[in-house]
Amino acid sequence: MSTLAEEVAREFGSPAVMIDLDRVEANIARLQAACDGAGLRNRPHIKTHKSPVLAKLQVAAGARGLTCQTLGEAEVMTGAGLSDLLISYNLVGAHKLARLAALLRRTALTVSADHPAVVAGLAEAAAAAGRPLDVVVECDTGRGRAGVTRPREAVALARAIAQAPSLRFAGLLLYPPEGGAAATSAFLDAVRPGLAEAGLEAGIVSTGGTPNLRDLGAVAGATEHRSGTSIFNDRMMMACGAARLEDCALDVVATVVSRATATRGVLDAGSKTLTADPGGGLDGHGLIREYPQARIGKLAEEHGFLDLSACPAAPEVGTVVRVVPNHVCVVVNMVDRLVATKGGRIVGEIPVAARGLTG
Amino acid sequence: MSTLAEEVAREFGSPAVMIDLDRVEANIARLQAACDGAGLRNRPHIKTHKSPVLAKLQVAAGARGLTCQTLGEAEVMTGAGLSDLLISYNLVGAHKLARLAALLRRTALTVSADHPAVVAGLAEAAAAAGRPLDVVVECDTGRGRAGVTRPREAVALARAIAQAPSLRFAGLLLYPPEGGAAATSAFLDAVRPGLAEAGLEAGIVSTGGTPNLRDLGAVAGATEHRSGTSIFNDRMMMACGAARLEDCALDVVATVVSRATATRGVLDAGSKTLTADPGGGLDGHGLIREYPQARIGKLAEEHGFLDLSACPAAPEVGTVVRVVPNHVCVVVNMVDRLVATKGGRIVGEIPVAARGLTG
Repeated sequence: MSTLAEEVAREFGSPAVMIDLDRVEANIARLQAACDGAGLRNRPHIKTHKSPVLAKLQVAAGARGLTCQTLGEAEVMTGAGLSDLLISYNLVGAHKLARLAALLRRTALTVSADHPAVVAGLAEAAAAAGRPLDVVVECDTGRGRAGVTRPREAVALARAIAQAPSLRFAGLLLYPPEGGAAATSAFLDAVRPGLAEAGLEAGIVSTGGTPNLRDLGAVAGATEHRSGTSIFNDRMMMACGAARLEDCALDVVATVVSRATATRGVLDAGSKTLTADPGGGLDGHGLIREYPQARIGKLAEEHGFLDLSACPAAPEVGTVVRVVPNHVCVVVNMVDRLVATKGGRIVGEIPVAARGLTG
Repeated sequence: MSTLAEEVAREFGSPAVMIDLDRVEANIARLQAACDGAGLRNRPHIKTHKSPVLAKLQVAAGARGLTCQTLGEAEVMTGAGLSDLLISYNLVGAHKLARLAALLRRTALTVSADHPAVVAGLAEAAAAAGRPLDVVVECDTGRGRAGVTRPREAVALARAIAQAPSLRFAGLLLYPPEGGAAATSAFLDAVRPGLAEAGLEAGIVSTGGTPNLRDLGAVAGATEHRSGTSIFNDRMMMACGAARLEDCALDVVATVVSRATATRGVLDAGSKTLTADPGGGLDGHGLIREYPQARIGKLAEEHGFLDLSACPAAPEVGTVVRVVPNHVCVVVNMVDRLVATKGGRIVGEIPVAARGLTG
């Protein structure tokens, strides 16, 4: 009797990326329940799946709005009839601003900004579109990525947004570091008086991150949460305690193609499939469900180097396995389609419609 | 006046992957001259560019045959009219073997194998195709990836290939580790008597690797060489001395989208563009040509975290830069098209036709 992974490999080839829709639906429901329980609007981040099909499942389960990380993702979601999109990224440059104006003519949008130069560009795009653009100020409360780092900068930027005739100040975008709820709340406390003095209100106070679901609601005044990875989960989420192995809904199906020695092997999934993403310092490049003691210690482009020395029984050439990747969001972005399964059967393919649309 | 990178960003968006065809042609010519000088057939590895357009430039310059790492790459090259393909990978599993048979009906092929189970599958596919398949034995002379590790295994596998009615023993596939020419020559010396005893001859003795161009011809008895990365080069090739900065023909065009502090910035190229490939332990995730002191210290999916503390002058929000990536082969695989430039002008786009075809 064939395993499901063997059926996937036979039908779609190896390597392939498969998802378990039963687990996907359970993960979607769990996120929705967590947001409902915390009194927060659920605005899932579609960068993880890049698929309108899965976004629609999230909306059907209660999500109100979606988050996109790129304009290309927002274009794809809009084209599929999805709306209320928040683009959590500074859109900069003539090419993106022209596309933003075109998209804004089709649908209402919220975008983030962390710099006056970004606000100026957005204002021009919105003016060209002839439709007001909602803008949230991205605040850095400890992650050290993008975002204004001081409350007074947040207030100044909110004022600049409100003063632009084509823009509306819509609120604040936060991506607190793990365990950073207190610092984030303090940042918000410091911003609020300045906003009030300017006669402004943060209608949206958006938090983000799947690991932050642990203390969802701990950021005082938050109105919504953006979680991406929780729809699939991965080794990284297992490592930080945000998911169990049975919550991982996406596997890379791969085949053992070489067994040069008793302790070495090669999978046909390398850095062009699993990606070299270290998952924040994990050991190895994925967890093989059937051979958890096997270590994917190194990758070439089409080779996953296996160290089988700790395995009680080692897989042979031709053995098909399922690998839980370090980081699902980058793995999904390698393939044009996900093989969907449900109840232990293959039910079809789901296009990764926004794959590669990094701009 | 706009820079070329600014023009690319304006016309094609940011991030984009651009190549300089003048440098590409010089790199192709340099590889051809090196192979000619060493008396070796040049069989470039198309995994780096995955593009029939560029493969045809290589053939026009004198390449005899091409190397593919996946069956999907070989299908694309065949579809574009290219021939004499060597697939340097164990093809395993019913899906691949059925496709191999279909491809073999269309064109003559050479594939590698390192295990009797692989040979058995190839024999079935070739029998189904009704056309003989040339098979080379992959030998591991120190890299520790795929390949038989002992000369007597190589001979036994050569015999098994020769005995299969649908297969022809075509020779040996080698991928010597850097500086491994002597060990590889010794391996070959140990294989030859066994082959001779079996009445077999290694018509192909194929070496590979761009860093190994340094001592091209040092493997005694080699007949051909497979080099992939040399068509573009990258930071990894610079680090090992195989290329100079001016030989790097592929850049990621990216834009500074955030400057949260005086020493921090963000590029709109993250792990979904530059990839997390560490390039064999390089510091950072790419070299910014215009700001060589800037360090791309960390990546999120759409964020390249910049440490600008060592820069005499820092780029502003909106500045467009060119990044030499750590590893071009995986970067090319992220995009559907390369923006081609020549003589400082944009001349068009080149499809990465085999992108994502990892099976």
